[in-house]
Amino acid sequence: MAVRVPEIDYYSLHGIWGAYGSLVLGRLGRGAGVVIGDVRPPRGGLFVGYRSGREEPRLLPFSAGVSFGLGASAYREDEVDSSRAVGLRSAAYFGSGEIERYVSFSGEEWRAGALSFRVVSFFGEAPDPQAVTPAAAREGLRPSMLLRIRFDNSSGSGPMTGLFGMQGIRRPLSDSTAGALLGMAGDSSFGFAIRPKEGIEEVMDWSVVEAAFDGGPDGASRPLRRLASEGGLRFSVAPGETAEHVVALGVFRDGIVTAGLSAHVYHSCLFKDLEDVLESALDDAPESLFRAERLDGLLEDSELSEDRQFLLAHAAHSYSASTELLLTESGDPLFVVNEGEYQMMNTLDLTVDQAFWEARFSPWTLRNELESFAERSSYEDSLGLAFAHDQGVDDCFSPKGRSAYEMPGLSDCFSFMSYEETLNWVLSACIYANLAGDLAWAKGRRHTLAACLHSLLARDANGDGVMDRDSDRCAGGSEITTYDSLDISLGQARNNLYLAVKAWSAFVCVETLLRRIDGLETADSRAAAGAARAAARTITGKMLEAEGFIPAVFESDNRSCIIPAVEGLAYPGFCGAPEAVRADGPYGELVRALKRHLDVVLAPGVCLDPVSGGWKLSSTSRNTWLSKIFLNQYVAERVLGLDDERTRRDAVHARWLRTGSADYAATDQVDSMSGADLGSRLYPRLVTSILWLEKG
Amino acid sequence: MAVRVPEIDYYSLHGIWGAYGSLVLGRLGRGAGVVIGDVRPPRGGLFVGYRSGREEPRLLPFSAGVSFGLGASAYREDEVDSSRAVGLRSAAYFGSGEIERYVSFSGEEWRAGALSFRVVSFFGEAPDPQAVTPAAAREGLRPSMLLRIRFDNSSGSGPMTGLFGMQGIRRPLSDSTAGALLGMAGDSSFGFAIRPKEGIEEVMDWSVVEAAFDGGPDGASRPLRRLASEGGLRFSVAPGETAEHVVALGVFRDGIVTAGLSAHVYHSCLFKDLEDVLESALDDAPESLFRAERLDGLLEDSELSEDRQFLLAHAAHSYSASTELLLTESGDPLFVVNEGEYQMMNTLDLTVDQAFWEARFSPWTLRNELESFAERSSYEDSLGLAFAHDQGVDDCFSPKGRSAYEMPGLSDCFSFMSYEETLNWVLSACIYANLAGDLAWAKGRRHTLAACLHSLLARDANGDGVMDRDSDRCAGGSEITTYDSLDISLGQARNNLYLAVKAWSAFVCVETLLRRIDGLETADSRAAAGAARAAARTITGKMLEAEGFIPAVFESDNRSCIIPAVEGLAYPGFCGAPEAVRADGPYGELVRALKRHLDVVLAPGVCLDPVSGGWKLSSTSRNTWLSKIFLNQYVAERVLGLDDERTRRDAVHARWLRTGSADYAATDQVDSMSGADLGSRLYPRLVTSILWLEKG
Repeated sequence: MAVRVPEIDYYSLHGIWGAYGSLVLGRLGRGAGVVIGDVRPPRGGLFVGYRSGREEPRLLPFSAGVSFGLGASAYREDEVDSSRAVGLRSAAYFGSGEIERYVSFSGEEWRAGALSFRVVSFFGEAPDPQAVTPAAAREGLRPSMLLRIRFDNSSGSGPMTGLFGMQGIRRPLSDSTAGALLGMAGDSSFGFAIRPKEGIEEVMDWSVVEAAFDGGPDGASRPLRRLASEGGLRFSVAPGETAEHVVALGVFRDGIVTAGLSAHVYHSCLFKDLEDVLESALDDAPESLFRAERLDGLLEDSELSEDRQFLLAHAAHSYSASTELLLTESGDPLFVVNEGEYQMMNTLDLTVDQAFWEARFSPWTLRNELESFAERSSYEDSLGLAFAHDQGVDDCFSPKGRSAYEMPGLSDCFSFMSYEETLNWVLSACIYANLAGDLAWAKGRRHTLAACLHSLLARDANGDGVMDRDSDRCAGGSEITTYDSLDISLGQARNNLYLAVKAWSAFVCVETLLRRIDGLETADSRAAAGAARAAARTITGKMLEAEGFIPAVFESDNRSCIIPAVEGLAYPGFCGAPEAVRADGPYGELVRALKRHLDVVLAPGVCLDPVSGGWKLSSTSRNTWLSKIFLNQYVAERVLGLDDERTRRDAVHARWLRTGSADYAATDQVDSMSGADLGSRLYPRLVTSILWLEKG
Repeated sequence: MAVRVPEIDYYSLHGIWGAYGSLVLGRLGRGAGVVIGDVRPPRGGLFVGYRSGREEPRLLPFSAGVSFGLGASAYREDEVDSSRAVGLRSAAYFGSGEIERYVSFSGEEWRAGALSFRVVSFFGEAPDPQAVTPAAAREGLRPSMLLRIRFDNSSGSGPMTGLFGMQGIRRPLSDSTAGALLGMAGDSSFGFAIRPKEGIEEVMDWSVVEAAFDGGPDGASRPLRRLASEGGLRFSVAPGETAEHVVALGVFRDGIVTAGLSAHVYHSCLFKDLEDVLESALDDAPESLFRAERLDGLLEDSELSEDRQFLLAHAAHSYSASTELLLTESGDPLFVVNEGEYQMMNTLDLTVDQAFWEARFSPWTLRNELESFAERSSYEDSLGLAFAHDQGVDDCFSPKGRSAYEMPGLSDCFSFMSYEETLNWVLSACIYANLAGDLAWAKGRRHTLAACLHSLLARDANGDGVMDRDSDRCAGGSEITTYDSLDISLGQARNNLYLAVKAWSAFVCVETLLRRIDGLETADSRAAAGAARAAARTITGKMLEAEGFIPAVFESDNRSCIIPAVEGLAYPGFCGAPEAVRADGPYGELVRALKRHLDVVLAPGVCLDPVSGGWKLSSTSRNTWLSKIFLNQYVAERVLGLDDERTRRDAVHARWLRTGSADYAATDQVDSMSGADLGSRLYPRLVTSILWLEKG
């Protein structure tokens, strides 16, 4: 069974994989609806409810009461609200106490009164369109979701009328399909539909609620008011019956949608238009629902706590919302994960964290990102090959070798991440090659791996395995890490504990991969191994023996304690080097030191927030990042075997997302005391939680 | 010289012909910018200004002070406003007393301090792409305008920095053009650019004002911050110099943009992308400016008062904003005028009013609309052929034979206009055939003209020339007229004076056209002449001899006085039947009666508003429509020879648009007392004012 959530008043971002489109809903009395080309919750109303006989209609509270589009009053002064007022006056929203909200891997369900409303938005694997038949691509990459709506009139003595409606629509789908579909669309870019059936009608009027529940003058259905921006489907449920309907909701984007590098959305080569998407979704609904059920089973049959099931499902839905599969002018797929509210395209320090997710559900997208970074978003500075932070912003690709984020002359936020992004490319490549079993690809990219290795070595002037030279792109500034907006404990790149362990990990992983590629040791693999040993030695040597932890920055007498010291330990196990992270393995000393470090810092007031009890990534900052907490939880529990009540703070973390950050599904950067959103809202990266599903 | 307007605080909608896109600006301290696929003023800021040396920068007041996109604070809490605050604090907007605003046919100009900012948005004729070379089509249908910006540093002792910038942009154009253009674009759909030149730089930052005027740490230019949503062009002006720059602003829409009937925007087959539009606009700038000058001369050399020049120019710019030239899947152009805020497509009762405009600037679009209505938006009811009110709404075409507006069972707003729309098609066809001299087309449509005639006759049961039978599409309701939201004096179709005169006019015009087509009298032309005579007799017979006016409705003892009684007299002169509107012509009795009517009703408290002195279309409603005022002014002055201080209330009407309706350029329906907008905002129809340019 799905997880029933104790706090129900928070947004979910139900992404449609690859379409950069979502259905957003969940905050009570706030806007809901479809958003495309962005992730910010729309202001419109979503109307899901029913009316039993002549009783007061009941609706789920998915409307902000904002009027949308022009109403009657725009056309004629004296018509102001003659219809709308009736509709709103006579309908009552369910209160939070009357509602149960359930979350599952494939979606979520709302139950209230005689109503059940289920969103099925996530279907698991996304196939490589270049490796499957067009028919399989249409099924696997279809930009749609399903909505299951049940109206229970089994104990009713009179007829019941059900409604699924929305603000922001502009046309009935029966118009463009000669009646083959019933439903509503907002221009050509989104819509929802069902096949015609006795007892189902389109409604479209200034107030769809009023039109659906009050009907025409004599109870008959009303003619469609095509000037209105509210519309939906009206369902008649006879007394004694329970009706369940599956509605398809789809999006479609036509034409060139990007700049800098011109591309269409990939689905535009698989589907003719929105109507084609919706018809296909309805035709395949049984198979899609079966896939969704199987997916739900994966989570429910796991040993994850309900909190972790919620966190993982919530992360999955928001990740999909930021995904965008493009079609280049040469006919190739180009995959982009947009960066939540920031809208940066394929931020490489997110890619490496999302690699575990993609390796499971779409390994080809990880390869696609690696290739795209190598071809388009890498550069040579005076120290060798490096990678850009991202590939652009808001569907605008940056020029070759440039990110939208990085700027010269800075030592803080918006500076370059040359070293870390190079690590990230290497680690992502190792994860892909190993988990997808694609050694052929790795062989083709051997030269890039070697170039990365030598570039990384060149950025370590003193040969201690730790980065100490900034890219000349910084132009007087200095490099930073992905933890740009945390304090200095995680922000600066040089002599940074987090980055040093991640570098050690990259050396270990690339050494392993190079040996597999070459079939033997080479100068390259030996250089990698040497760097790994040097890094391990350096890091271990920084242990403050009295205190039992390693300071976050090996400079200025820094004393911050950070959890992500251990983050780098996540990779070797997935990259063919599991022995490297064993306490009794070749790097046992480092592993034992990091375990001791984590054991020490996971203490209240240090890296456990004294108020909430949640994880604080740094002892000196209240800004903590959930995606990284999940990743480091995995390392603590599965790699280091530190699995106790200190690592199981999931109830706190889940509550953060459902309360403090309820407005933004899912928020990465939160206040460790309250869970209040601090940044990285509506974010894809929280799918690092997929690591919890790894078998011991 | 252009007209200097006394009230400067009102919006102008600078439409880009055929692109359904505009540059909106003019309300002080309110949003400005580019809007596409709609006409509502955007909320963003437009920054046009300069800084002399280290003095406080001065800007035109085109910003609402609203932040746009994510700022630094979204990325890092402690960066809140560190840049923006500086930018806004140190710039001062010109006050209204420091600004001069000039309007011309081709655009407008703002002067303040050392700055002049001119928008050149209207270039006159739009060529038929099927009748000209592709090169001429690119030039004549290019979705762009020009902005001339002059910075006068002739008396300056230090350097001056100028700025043209905007919120809502996302990328520098140097990125996608390898430096061939400097400028900014918002995704792929709009942008502005200039050719690279010494002293011109792109700026892009959280605050473009601050970045442009404060530059980098040592006064150098700043690197572009590609994450920002503000950007622009920075101009260096040396002491003693006056710099004038021409910036191109363009739009581009790719892919299918309509539903119901799938179409691209036409310019997408003439231009590759936004960059192509902008480069072409800059290349052709001298020729475009020459065309604009010639156009300005047309107005300035006319005998129109300054108020009329303003009204006509304001109307022209707003009309263009609603125009949309589509490309159908069969490769043909399909022209649409969207209905301002209502967004209905090709509302036929607007088409007939805009016919005079289109006959002058794009006669082929009038033919295109007539064909499109005949093919797609006509229907047969039990009385014969009739036309739908419109072809859809918001880029969603209605099904064949249906409008978005009309609904059954009503007797008021949103009911059918079958009779009037059939008149409108006939009159528009006669205007086109005559003014474009396209008798061949009229011959090809003879069957449609005849079908219209017989349908009109069938709707007059008693043969008195006046409509008395409602379409069965009304299903119990009754037909209305284009004056849907005025009171009963103009709203109901049956026995309506306005419609009766318009019908008389249509019978006269179609009789004339049929005789030209056939080369002789036929049963059809005789039937038309008979109906015209019957209508004339009926109308004349309704004169209240004692009072000297004809009541608005020939029913229920109605006593409303309406100006549009004379509206129908506008057409015969353009349709080859000028004698029909002569006081001594074949319909002299009718013409004299209508002149007497108008002379009587044009009295304070009747059809002159007692407070403002402006025209009131109906004595019983304060809702008055400017497009119709202009049309009826033409009839009064040029057809009936009633030309005195009662017809010259243009100063009042101009003030209405610049004060009461300042938020919506241009508003059609206003309160006759105050000019406050009542409906039909941001409207195209006010180009009936082109009739003022008719030579006696």
